Amino acid sequence: MDQRVQASFDRQTFMRTLGATLEQAGDGTVAISLPRAETLAQQHGYLHAGALISVMDSACGYAALSLAPEGSEVLTSELKVNLLAPVTGAAVIARGRVIRAGRTLSVCQGDAYDVADPSKHLATMLATMVLVTAR
Amino acid sequence: MDQRVQASFDRQTFMRTLGATLEQAGDGTVAISLPRAETLAQQHGYLHAGALISVMDSACGYAALSLAPEGSEVLTSELKVNLLAPVTGAAVIARGRVIRAGRTLSVCQGDAYDVADPSKHLATMLATMVLVTAR
Amino acid sequence: MDQRVQASFDRQTFMRTLGATLEQAGDGTVAISLPRAETLAQQHGYLHAGALISVMDSACGYAALSLAPEGSEVLTSELKVNLLAPVTGAAVIARGRVIRAGRTLSVCQGDAYDVADPSKHLATMLATMVLVTAR
Amino acid sequence: MDQRVQASFDRQTFMRTLGATLEQAGDGTVAISLPRAETLAQQHGYLHAGALISVMDSACGYAALSLAPEGSEVLTSELKVNLLAPVTGAAVIARGRVIRAGRTLSVCQGDAYDVADPSKHLATMLATMVLVTAR
Repeated sequence: MDQRVQASFDRQTFMRTLGATLEQAGDGTVAISLPRAETLAQQHGYLHAGALISVMDSACGYAALSLAPEGSEVLTSELKVNLLAPVTGAAVIARGRVIRAGRTLSVCQGDAYDVADPSKHLATMLATMVLVTAR
Repeated sequence: MDQRVQASFDRQTFMRTLGATLEQAGDGTVAISLPRAETLAQQHGYLHAGALISVMDSACGYAALSLAPEGSEVLTSELKVNLLAPVTGAAVIARGRVIRAGRTLSVCQGDAYDVADPSKHLATMLATMVLVTAR
Repeated sequence: MDQRVQASFDRQTFMRTLGATLEQAGDGTVAISLPRAETLAQQHGYLHAGALISVMDSACGYAALSLAPEGSEVLTSELKVNLLAPVTGAAVIARGRVIRAGRTLSVCQGDAYDVADPSKHLATMLATMVLVTAR
Repeated sequence: MDQRVQASFDRQTFMRTLGATLEQAGDGTVAISLPRAETLAQQHGYLHAGALISVMDSACGYAALSLAPEGSEVLTSELKVNLLAPVTGAAVIARGRVIRAGRTLSVCQGDAYDVADPSKHLATMLATMVLVTAR
């Protein structure tokens, strides 16, 4: 586990509010799990797309951070997500990976799957992360 | 206020978890406010992009719903967001509006601003919503 | 007319191949017109989405260039476009404008309309441009 | 080779204008090659992003068509592309594949590589295609 990613993740109170767990981080890939919860529902009781997108965004950002020079911070510049299936399972896993690591911009792909049925592809994301020097 | 939107918004427990409020809804436009909260932060204490995107997504979806035939439901098919400035203020307002209302697909634009300084444009979104018949 | 934009546009042989004309450039906005041509069609004889997207991309890039420091070049980092209506008219106009001008990244919005009926909104784009120092 | 895709591709005069060739089509995947040409350049003589995006768009659309019921047509609803590296080689190959085939919407991923060096990833795309009944 990348310690820098773990430390930053632990400071994201929003991940705690969602109930998300950092499962793996290092070498340009990150996995975050998110159990479905009654507090995260849209109008039909399914997981709100925003909660899913939030953990996919964090997975992509931390994938970029895991490859960034010491003393870097990562900010999301933009992201695009296609929602492929309603989230009806008990938990999702969001996987982020760097597909191009640049000096100032990193491009990442994120994918979310049902934890109980990893063949169920729930969403896919492309995101651009900006690397900045931490103050 | 569009009563159908209000009723659906009230069923989204995730909006309650975020602390979001439906401010306006009707005729293809929706506004949702979100105060900054300690439970919604990223690693530097600013609002997590995912929380911002979540309310923008709901604003776009409900803008589409406000123009949809009776008995319709709206699902997010895809969205793309550019984050324009860090969210450092006390509250944000997310505005969604329909730019093309179709029979099965509606295209919406979302924009988020600082509540105290509406000239501060925080993020802009394009989203495609799918209209389905409610069961 | 911004002379730097005009000079760069004139070097884009692809714009000549398309038959596109730079109509306006300056202060963060650019307009490019494109007549429909038999050489630019998709399988039904309408304008190929790629031709439309190409002039929207150039309009966004040049809008960013019009605000960039002397000696800058602009590269497209990413773009997203929603196609709102089939292009059935005789000509389109693509308008790009900067919505956030940064030191290294500029975010632009592009919109395409039918020339004969400007109320016909054909497509909308969000794009991120990278500013680099020209060699 | 999927004959329906080949026939439709042959009707796209824009693909001929670009000099693009359909290399493979069937079972949800399509490959289109595009040689660099003096007529397709941006201001520095490299391939214009719009030309690259155009063949990626066609590759994604035809990937969707290859899985669609007889009598269907495919229209691009929206696409998003991240440009990963300047196109400096002599030719590119654009590959499209369906990641979710729906009844009315198909989500596709497109990727472009240098023909001479397939490890050089030039661009990646997510696109939503709409299936309609051909008239």
